[in-house]
Amino acid sequence: MSTFFDATSLTHAELEEGTLLAPRFDALGLVTAIVQEAGSLRVLMLAHMNAEALKLTLETGDAHYWSRSRGKIWKKGESSGEVQRVVEVRVDCDQDAVLLLVEQTGRGAACHTGRKSCFYRIVDGAALRDSGEPRLFDPAEVYRS
Amino acid sequence: MSTFFDATSLTHAELEEGTLLAPRFDALGLVTAIVQEAGSLRVLMLAHMNAEALKLTLETGDAHYWSRSRGKIWKKGESSGEVQRVVEVRVDCDQDAVLLLVEQTGRGAACHTGRKSCFYRIVDGAALRDSGEPRLFDPAEVYRS
Repeated sequence: MSTFFDATSLTHAELEEGTLLAPRFDALGLVTAIVQEAGSLRVLMLAHMNAEALKLTLETGDAHYWSRSRGKIWKKGESSGEVQRVVEVRVDCDQDAVLLLVEQTGRGAACHTGRKSCFYRIVDGAALRDSGEPRLFDPAEVYRS
Repeated sequence: MSTFFDATSLTHAELEEGTLLAPRFDALGLVTAIVQEAGSLRVLMLAHMNAEALKLTLETGDAHYWSRSRGKIWKKGESSGEVQRVVEVRVDCDQDAVLLLVEQTGRGAACHTGRKSCFYRIVDGAALRDSGEPRLFDPAEVYRS
């Protein structure tokens, strides 16, 4: 199903400096995806992609992930309406992580708690402090059904 | 060795909305760390932390990671001089990822290839295109020895 080049057949230099997209999926078949908002450059969330999720993302321009908890492909926004339109995808040096620059549609909330970003708490000594990120939707309302 | 609160003893609401730092380390004892430059908001790199690396990062203010390839704690910059001073640490909703806002010291290169960011290639169809990120140091020179 994966149409990606096999990373194990590349030299170190080809992997890191070459022009072949050869994602290094881990033992669970996943790469890590960092999701950043294109305009603000805020980091919205961290997610995981299997080969199919990455392929669907590149083909459709809408972010798809692999849900480790539900064990299935997940189109971001399929329940909440908060679809992520992909502006640019980058890979890191050893191709085991991707960086998505996205336009966060809907109410602008990437997080299932209704906030723009999942990173709404700041580590403060041994505790966490709320950064004051407002809720853009009520999760009890959105995930009803 | 870990002094962090045990995430498994928290309710879902406490984990996601509470003020206790309770990192959810995975089966390998790791959380994922996204590293973002404080001024530019550029994503510099992705790394992993075990409990000790997170503790050292919070205690010293210098980013420490767990090297999966070398199987040891790694103070960022210990070989290259490219130390990362931590400005802020955030956790995500389910506390299995952290976001570090850092000042990238040294020549400003977070990547072992000598570039500022590890994400120097853009996915372009089935291929990768160089974003034109300049090398700030020569890795052959820096990692000699």
